[in-house]
Parts: sequence; C-alpha cells; structure tokens
Amino acid sequence: MKLLYPTSVKLDIQSLQGFSVTLHPYDVKAPIPEELIDAEILVTWSNAASNLQDAAKRMKNIKWIQSLAAGPNDVLNAGFDRSKIIVTTGVGLHDGPVAEHALGLLLTGARRFFEMRDYQLQSKWPGHLGGSFPRSDFTTLRNSRVLIWGFGSIAKKLTPYLTGLGAEVKGIARSHGVRNGVEVFGEDKLAELLPQTDALVMILPGSDSTNNALNAERLKLLPKHAWLVNVGRGTSVDEDALADALEKGEIAGAALDVFKTEPLPESSRLWKTPNLVISPHAAGGRPEGCTEFIADNLRRYLASQQLKNVI
Amino acid sequence: MKLLYPTSVKLDIQSLQGFSVTLHPYDVKAPIPEELIDAEILVTWSNAASNLQDAAKRMKNIKWIQSLAAGPNDVLNAGFDRSKIIVTTGVGLHDGPVAEHALGLLLTGARRFFEMRDYQLQSKWPGHLGGSFPRSDFTTLRNSRVLIWGFGSIAKKLTPYLTGLGAEVKGIARSHGVRNGVEVFGEDKLAELLPQTDALVMILPGSDSTNNALNAERLKLLPKHAWLVNVGRGTSVDEDALADALEKGEIAGAALDVFKTEPLPESSRLWKTPNLVISPHAAGGRPEGCTEFIADNLRRYLASQQLKNVI
Repeated sequence: MKLLYPTSVKLDIQSLQGFSVTLHPYDVKAPIPEELIDAEILVTWSNAASNLQDAAKRMKNIKWIQSLAAGPNDVLNAGFDRSKIIVTTGVGLHDGPVAEHALGLLLTGARRFFEMRDYQLQSKWPGHLGGSFPRSDFTTLRNSRVLIWGFGSIAKKLTPYLTGLGAEVKGIARSHGVRNGVEVFGEDKLAELLPQTDALVMILPGSDSTNNALNAERLKLLPKHAWLVNVGRGTSVDEDALADALEKGEIAGAALDVFKTEPLPESSRLWKTPNLVISPHAAGGRPEGCTEFIADNLRRYLASQQLKNVI
Repeated sequence: MKLLYPTSVKLDIQSLQGFSVTLHPYDVKAPIPEELIDAEILVTWSNAASNLQDAAKRMKNIKWIQSLAAGPNDVLNAGFDRSKIIVTTGVGLHDGPVAEHALGLLLTGARRFFEMRDYQLQSKWPGHLGGSFPRSDFTTLRNSRVLIWGFGSIAKKLTPYLTGLGAEVKGIARSHGVRNGVEVFGEDKLAELLPQTDALVMILPGSDSTNNALNAERLKLLPKHAWLVNVGRGTSVDEDALADALEKGEIAGAALDVFKTEPLPESSRLWKTPNLVISPHAAGGRPEGCTEFIADNLRRYLASQQLKNVI
C-alpha cells in the first residue's frame, strides 16, 4: 500500500515509518507520476488545482485523502468520487500559527509598529509614538479588555498568550459558558460587551450566518480607542462600514488578515484607509504537528478505527 | 509635609491617601509654584530640564525625590544637593512594557509585518509572505531558539511570554546559573551559543564594558536566518557592523528600539538598511504599577525604613 506525501511542507518522514505502507514524496504542482498512481493514501498541502483534478481522474485506488488544510475546498472541488473516498482535514494544525499572528497584529496596533514603519520610510523619528500618557487608548495588552468573537480552538490557543501579557479576555460564541477559564457569552450580549472592549479579535468561520457580522451598527458600539483584529474570514466584516468608521475616527484602528476578495484588489479603498493594517492572509499557512497527526490517523486507518477530522 | 506628584503620568491618587502628607499635583514643564516650593517630597516623570534645575535652586526643604524613570539622569544632573537628598528610581516599573515591546518586535520580524506594510503602501498584496515552507528561517517563535543577552528583570518578564509561544529561551549574563527556570551562561559561552540562535534579544545596560558588545566578529557567528532585537542600550551594538551584516545578508533582520544617537539623525544609513526595523526608543515610557510603588516607598519614608531603589 502506497502513501504519497507532499514535498510542499516539512515532514519528519522517520516518524511515519513502521507502518505497513510505503512512503513516497510527490510534487504538488505536477501530475502524479505513473508509478505512484496506484496509491491508496494521498496527503495534500497547497496542491495545484491541476494536480488534484488530474489525480481525481487517474488515481483509481485512492481511498483516503488527508489534507493538511483546515478547509480543504481544493480537494472537495477536484472531482474525486466522494462516495468511495474519505477526506480528512488539518483542523487544529493551524491554531498555534493563527493565534501567534493574531497576537502580533494586536501588538502592531497597541505599539503602532505600522506607523513607525511609515516614518522610517521617510527617515523620520516618530518620538511621539513612545509612552502612553495622556492618551487613554489601546497602547498595551496589560489591563486591556480583549473580546474574542468566535471562541473555538484558535481562541483557546490565543487566550493564554493574552492573559500572560495581562489582558482580560472574554469570548462570544453560539453557546455561552466558561471555556478554558474564559467567560464566553452568546451574541445576544454583544451590545453590552462591545462598549467595554479595547480590542476585538474576530475568528468567525465563513458562513451565511456570519456574513457582515461586524456591521456599521456594531462598529458604533466600540469605544473610539478600540482596535479590531480579524483572522477569521473576510466575509464576517462589512469592509465599507469599517473603512467609514476608520476614516471618521469612530474606532482607533484595524488589522485584517482576511478580506472579502483575496488577493485584495489594487483598487480597494482599504489599502489607503487610515489606521488599517493589511496582512495578506498569512496567519496560517504553516501547519504545526503535521507528522504526528498524519501518523496517528494512519495508525487509525490501518486499524480500521475512526479517523480524526473526517469531513 | 507636602508631596508633589506629576500630572505627566496617570496615578491613582486615592491609593496615596491615608498618610500624614498632603498631595499636590504639579506641571513638570513649568516652574514649581511658590505655594508648593516648601515640599519635602517630589515625584518626577519626564520633567523638563528647566523645571528640575529651577526646583534644585528653589526647593530648600526637599529631602526625597522619587523618579519613575529607571535611570533618572535628569534628576541627577539638575544640581540638587545630593548630600541632603535621597533619590530613588523607578527600576522595575518598566519591565513589563519593555518586555511586551520586545515580544512585538520579535513577532514583527518572524511575521514580516514591516514588509507587509511596505507592500500595503504600494497597494500590493504580498502573498509570498504567508506560510513558512520551504524557507528554514525564523518565521515563528514556536520551537525557535531565543538567546537573551543581559538577563535581568526585563528578561525575566519576557521569558514566559516567549516560552508560552513555544520558544526555547537561554540567557547570557555576567554570572551563570539557572534563573526563573532559564539556563543563563557567561559571556565566555557566546561563541558557542550564537551559532545556535534564531533570535538574539539584547537587553544590556549602557556602560563601558557593554560598548559595541555585538560587533562584526560576533554578528558573523549568528546563522543567516537569525534576527536581532535590541531594547537595551544603543551603545551595545556596533551599528555600522550591523548595517554591513544586513546589507550582505549575513543575518536576516534586526529590530532596534535604541541607538547610539537618539533621535536617530536623518542622515543615518540605518533608515534604509534592508530588513532593519526602527522603533523610536518606545519600548518603555509607560511605567506600570507607579501608585503602588510610590505608596510603598512613602510608607517606608514615613516609618524611617530603608527605601526601595535608592541610588
């Protein structure tokens, strides 16, 4: 039995040895070579659409596809016969990287690193960006009130980074309760919580129910000194309402890693919106713990046990 | 007995009440008003040199000056009669802010936020800045090897932020040993440690012995993918050697908050050095826990006990 693994991500192949499968690297940007086409297991990561479409036609023995992406739309749209193939995702492998990126964007806002860069490019020293007084705005995570909207596994990774720096963290999710020591509220409490928020971190999934979740009305509930960070999906923010709010100074800043249209078109007003930081959907894209995850799912597969992260 | 406190920093005055002193706010940029000139205690923060020089001449009853700065050179150089006056510093009040800034600069390097900003200013989407493979360089703190040179109280604050994100932290200080769970080595081990370092954080004090501590020879010992962050003193880095190393690609990047000359002159080559991030000595300047510290020292003063942070 052959398992094909991608050369597009660093894997510790030694830790995949010891199972009754043979391990074969492949190039995700080229067609699968003829001698590997009878493989039963395919691991994917940032494959070319042409690679997957070709594989869907030619790989007659394929039974299991392990994608390392959290949402493997590329695999699902490639034309594989889903009635014969199990697809498993890389949900969880991106929690740490996305949480770290969100932390970096929060500090970029609090410490105004983006503005320092603008001055640097003009060889000018922005001495006024040091210190915090007499401004009452968001200049540090210490004692800041961070609200995480979309309190799932990424939020659970992010929370201890924030509390370690002295922030007070609350969450918003579909169902309320205490998770990992954080008080999580339902969306019915948004109107009460947004005015008490120094930094709003959005980690909502993309779906009809989250479309434009952060709209003009809710933006107005945030304090003027508040920052927004979005590392979830671009669809969850009304981008025009956000640009309006930033231009009018209704909130202090925003750092977005996701957008309604990606890549963000050159014509977008967001590029030049004041106090807006643009990150090119770069929070994830560096899965962690891939080898251990593949090894565990491979063991389950060979033992005919339930796989993890089945779609 | 009068205590004068500055309006240049936010203090919780209620938490200074209950002692046998009267509390009086004053403007640090103007001369001390005549009715306050007989005060015995002066708290200072970012005072104008003229304010302090005038106070040194006119405040005949002054016995104790509590500066909130870590190094109150302004007070020491103002002409007060040091034989009659105790000066205490704000050492410790800046540890958290400086550590947070250092963390932000490390993430700026790992996540290349500065480069994203350069693209944003051209309305261009830097899609290549996402992900980590096949680069082997410093793209995350997870599993990265961070060496903190100058392992004092700021380093102790910074370490848990870094280990929380998955970094492996080692220290360099005058004397070796284990501090707060971190292995700290003497400078004689630098040649061995620098080649195993992904990110070097310098928090050295300014002194003759730390002058150009990071020189051309030691820069060459760092891996090509290594980043440097300096939040200590500008004198500890040979700036020309650093600019050379960055221009030649001998190290991957540097984020400096401190410089030999501040503000950095417009003519400095550092502004345009590739992969160099310039922060305007902004790590500190926002002391934390001032009121509690002043209250404790005030209690000690009134009880004739040893003050904290006496120079």
